[in-house]
Amino acid sequence: MYLKHAAIIGGTGYGALELIRLLQNHPEVTIKKIISHSQEGEYLENTYPHLASFLEGPMETFEAESLVNDVDIIFFATPPGVSKNYIPQLAGTSVQCIDLSGDLRLEKPENYEKWYGKTPAPQEILDEAVYGLSEIYESELKKAKICSNPGCYPTASLLGLMPAITHKLIDNESIIIDGKTGVSGAGRTMSPMTHFSETNENVKPYKIGRHQHIPEIEQYLGKEAGKPVCINMTTHLLPMTRGLLCTMYGKLATQLNTKEAIEIYSEYYEADPFVRIRPEGTFPSTKEVSGSNFCDIGLYADDRTNQLVIVSAIDNLVKGASGQAIQNMNIMNGWQTDKGLKQVPVYP
Amino acid sequence: MYLKHAAIIGGTGYGALELIRLLQNHPEVTIKKIISHSQEGEYLENTYPHLASFLEGPMETFEAESLVNDVDIIFFATPPGVSKNYIPQLAGTSVQCIDLSGDLRLEKPENYEKWYGKTPAPQEILDEAVYGLSEIYESELKKAKICSNPGCYPTASLLGLMPAITHKLIDNESIIIDGKTGVSGAGRTMSPMTHFSETNENVKPYKIGRHQHIPEIEQYLGKEAGKPVCINMTTHLLPMTRGLLCTMYGKLATQLNTKEAIEIYSEYYEADPFVRIRPEGTFPSTKEVSGSNFCDIGLYADDRTNQLVIVSAIDNLVKGASGQAIQNMNIMNGWQTDKGLKQVPVYP
Amino acid sequence: MYLKHAAIIGGTGYGALELIRLLQNHPEVTIKKIISHSQEGEYLENTYPHLASFLEGPMETFEAESLVNDVDIIFFATPPGVSKNYIPQLAGTSVQCIDLSGDLRLEKPENYEKWYGKTPAPQEILDEAVYGLSEIYESELKKAKICSNPGCYPTASLLGLMPAITHKLIDNESIIIDGKTGVSGAGRTMSPMTHFSETNENVKPYKIGRHQHIPEIEQYLGKEAGKPVCINMTTHLLPMTRGLLCTMYGKLATQLNTKEAIEIYSEYYEADPFVRIRPEGTFPSTKEVSGSNFCDIGLYADDRTNQLVIVSAIDNLVKGASGQAIQNMNIMNGWQTDKGLKQVPVYP
Amino acid sequence: MYLKHAAIIGGTGYGALELIRLLQNHPEVTIKKIISHSQEGEYLENTYPHLASFLEGPMETFEAESLVNDVDIIFFATPPGVSKNYIPQLAGTSVQCIDLSGDLRLEKPENYEKWYGKTPAPQEILDEAVYGLSEIYESELKKAKICSNPGCYPTASLLGLMPAITHKLIDNESIIIDGKTGVSGAGRTMSPMTHFSETNENVKPYKIGRHQHIPEIEQYLGKEAGKPVCINMTTHLLPMTRGLLCTMYGKLATQLNTKEAIEIYSEYYEADPFVRIRPEGTFPSTKEVSGSNFCDIGLYADDRTNQLVIVSAIDNLVKGASGQAIQNMNIMNGWQTDKGLKQVPVYP
Repeated sequence: MYLKHAAIIGGTGYGALELIRLLQNHPEVTIKKIISHSQEGEYLENTYPHLASFLEGPMETFEAESLVNDVDIIFFATPPGVSKNYIPQLAGTSVQCIDLSGDLRLEKPENYEKWYGKTPAPQEILDEAVYGLSEIYESELKKAKICSNPGCYPTASLLGLMPAITHKLIDNESIIIDGKTGVSGAGRTMSPMTHFSETNENVKPYKIGRHQHIPEIEQYLGKEAGKPVCINMTTHLLPMTRGLLCTMYGKLATQLNTKEAIEIYSEYYEADPFVRIRPEGTFPSTKEVSGSNFCDIGLYADDRTNQLVIVSAIDNLVKGASGQAIQNMNIMNGWQTDKGLKQVPVYP
Repeated sequence: MYLKHAAIIGGTGYGALELIRLLQNHPEVTIKKIISHSQEGEYLENTYPHLASFLEGPMETFEAESLVNDVDIIFFATPPGVSKNYIPQLAGTSVQCIDLSGDLRLEKPENYEKWYGKTPAPQEILDEAVYGLSEIYESELKKAKICSNPGCYPTASLLGLMPAITHKLIDNESIIIDGKTGVSGAGRTMSPMTHFSETNENVKPYKIGRHQHIPEIEQYLGKEAGKPVCINMTTHLLPMTRGLLCTMYGKLATQLNTKEAIEIYSEYYEADPFVRIRPEGTFPSTKEVSGSNFCDIGLYADDRTNQLVIVSAIDNLVKGASGQAIQNMNIMNGWQTDKGLKQVPVYP
Repeated sequence: MYLKHAAIIGGTGYGALELIRLLQNHPEVTIKKIISHSQEGEYLENTYPHLASFLEGPMETFEAESLVNDVDIIFFATPPGVSKNYIPQLAGTSVQCIDLSGDLRLEKPENYEKWYGKTPAPQEILDEAVYGLSEIYESELKKAKICSNPGCYPTASLLGLMPAITHKLIDNESIIIDGKTGVSGAGRTMSPMTHFSETNENVKPYKIGRHQHIPEIEQYLGKEAGKPVCINMTTHLLPMTRGLLCTMYGKLATQLNTKEAIEIYSEYYEADPFVRIRPEGTFPSTKEVSGSNFCDIGLYADDRTNQLVIVSAIDNLVKGASGQAIQNMNIMNGWQTDKGLKQVPVYP
Repeated sequence: MYLKHAAIIGGTGYGALELIRLLQNHPEVTIKKIISHSQEGEYLENTYPHLASFLEGPMETFEAESLVNDVDIIFFATPPGVSKNYIPQLAGTSVQCIDLSGDLRLEKPENYEKWYGKTPAPQEILDEAVYGLSEIYESELKKAKICSNPGCYPTASLLGLMPAITHKLIDNESIIIDGKTGVSGAGRTMSPMTHFSETNENVKPYKIGRHQHIPEIEQYLGKEAGKPVCINMTTHLLPMTRGLLCTMYGKLATQLNTKEAIEIYSEYYEADPFVRIRPEGTFPSTKEVSGSNFCDIGLYADDRTNQLVIVSAIDNLVKGASGQAIQNMNIMNGWQTDKGLKQVPVYP
């Protein structure tokens, strides 16, 4: 059977590791190249011995021309500021680009400059890229050649909030997102935030009021609401490796009990195999989606305070990054959305 | 020098362990008796070898008469429903009672019945007990003979919210408390919530909409506000043993920037050695107060969303339980509020 | 395509969870029944929400007759003392039994009585069962109808020691095994050993001198050596969920350097896809095999002390239990040994 | 009351933090200066907010002359290669030096060169320094002016092995030390070893055959044995912050049961408040000594294999570093050995 050829750029980061793990089980794709600027010529399994026996050949450097000849799909698992320079080099070819970085997520260049502190991507690339929140933008993704894969917080937040916005369940002015994530979200970079002794047995708020995922969430909520939405998101680092949980609060804009909320959400995501709505009285936890592409959502309509509480849980490295990237690849190629991706979470 | 004699009821729980640890360094008090209903006659160090060489004699059973003769101060580190039966037996004696359980915290008996599902304490005991949020009720505590020690979430929440309520900084209708705690808050009871394999590498919401600390927080916020306050508190279990962090959100009721908020809080807690307000741009984490009686508070006035974000961190077993109990003992006996308690947090 | 039908007995334990997770990706088998004595009629996903959308129908009770009609393969993921009563009921049928418990591992009934404290299985069942250390007993397993799946420590220890015994590299009298495991090895049973607050940030030795895996290891080392072998194994509980590492020490019986030891081991396991020998100077860690069926082995010949140090790492729930059970199923059915099992470890 | 003045060199490391925490409760000493080469002029609480309200003034740079005038005791909590240059500058003064680094531990300069890869300290300093294993060398320490504080593994190993060597219980040729430690032992340096995502849920062997604590242990065992002793020590990194456990194995050189071993050890350490011998059938765990200066020891004489198993547990930052340094200060100044140090371990 003919397998499509994939390349992964940014070979030594956690995003790439997870792409390698998940693509290993994909029946339509084979990994052809792993690109690493910093470790060209080296074998990835020397840095990551868990990959021993899975990969062949050393890592390579990025060359647009040879990539175009050799591969069909390129995943950019790169730090901010890289893919925006590489993707334009692939313009006019048939290669599909899936960008896991934030370079193509903000439609307005001035927002990228403000929140990322870098020069934005060329406008035509920004215009062409389709935002890869798979469940919401599936029809656009079917025709996409460049996919801008969502951030981890936006994935969990938007999947949790979209039905409430669409059905006008909550007051858009009142949305608060309390985000909690494991340390792997910070990647392999070394810092006091990722130092074991500083982070273990600890919970710490970070980037309060200045997280670069805030404008991304507001942009897509605003699109759905039909007018600007302004949210407060406060993020916390937890002593765990994987997992991201958003607890979201919104003032109810309508009379609604928990049972009704669950019905609305269940219907909204009826056709989506990776979104699971929890039965009344139960809520998701991150371990229950660990290693998998699921986003689990729990709901509580609090009649004492007139608030809707929405809890969504994902594995930040899977549904929050590499898993959703593969889901988007599936959609872009006309394959079933969960092809090669329907694994049982690793529990406990 | 004459040392006051203390007894600890509920000898085998974590509250008692922490009282033993902290009283060991107290210059005015000695532990005379450790009472355990379930393990009378046994040596506590057999269950907890870390106590080897610190304790003499086996645990005893509760007898009001002999306690009255032998001790000056009794700490109740008991599960709900115990102290409300014992404390009345000590009425009319000179013994000071400090109750770490929730039995005496809710002024209205119907609230106790609703949230705890048990018969409330006698009204006269409820009336006599003084709520032991040390920094706020110090003058009442000076004259108290029965102290009702606050819960862990109420301690962190109320210390974080009181200045905002007093100074009318936020809209009382809008308060959201996102609580995060380590597993030791659940005590030594065995359950899936305290099972290592289920809780490690996991964050899970629990008791959504029905946490028994909700009415306690509302009662004291309401007192300060002069009218009922209704809050939304959502609690989460984190994969760590100690530590409790509350992230609190309130709509700003006045024009205020972060610098001004910090000034108001700093002044409010000027005389309080255990409340530390963080400089602008920094926020507390639980490890930074671990093993200590501190409550650290960070503030952020978000001009994008017009919200005040308040973050408070405590060690749930110290400031959230046994440490504050000792602080209250200090106040009730006319000793300095931080006597025997001013230890550097254990970091890392 | 015709799929073989499997049943899992002991549906609510971690062994069963892992069988469900791994069989989900197996191309030749489908799970037909999940049997739970204690939870008959209940849905497993109510206890384990991570399984939502994967299972159909409630759990059933054990009935030999209907099982024989409906399934081809039965996995016993049961506590000690259960399978020894059930397996005889299946005698004379064509059903394949794979027993993950210790009931059939010790050849001498008196050893089972001594180390497990229970009545042993019938002698004819003990005689018929083939020990499922896949790499070592592959040829016997090809003809087996009853497989006794190894314990977690025996798997890691025996794979680490067998080449040294076969090639007489070490003095058999001198073997010391220092075992280290995560908490999931204790299953879902609640005890102080599995209580988060007691186990987190802690390492504790347990069952010193009386671990029931000791006679199992000695039995198979003795078979290989051709005479009784007596080992010292000391086991430790670590603050992690999954993973088992054995550090083994033996006095060198021959002149040997590290490079030579690695060559001997590499050759010994040349045909075995799940045993990976580490290059000189590197050693395995448990995270590098997490979620996978690999056993990684590192070697060091210490010329200062004349000791061979062997380090082997497995995921106790996969290669140490359910993964190896599936590997044995593959062998017993003539399928490729790694069919449905060759997943990349989940890292980080 | 006159307090002695102490200076701490190496202000930003974990050793210094723990000295600050423990000295805070010491009745005879006050911290006068904190010296940091890299952060001169900065306030330590900016890096470590948990210290807020405890320290005055910024950190200073090292100047021998002013130190000699201002302080009585200097603690060197510095990386290898620093104190050996500073201590000679203090020769001929009355200042007491306590060196927590490894610079003065190896008597033979060639050993330091081999295991540390640096130029050794001047011979006269090596000759003058007294090894600060408090329980063993108390009489020498009473007269010492320079104390070389032991490493963490040597502390746990030597306290565990000394009675066995002294009483010739085990064959000196057969000693194996399996060491297990938390991440804080690696200090605040950032590396894959201290990266949360790589270390959490993981156990990994490190520095096999080349740990610089090996020659230190051999030197002092050899002194006690009266002839060279050669040990095999294999060290493992565990997913926890604090705690160090050594499991030690030795061939019994005499007929001995567990009860007798415990008696010998109890008598040996009878006068030592910080060594606690566990009752038969129980073993120490690291959490049971966490935050304290205790070394807990458990014993098992295995009559099946004729091995003595010795398990010793310490907090690597306290008894394994800063706590023992203060204990040595007590001894050097004629104070009670446990002055200011007898805290209950922080449990859970």
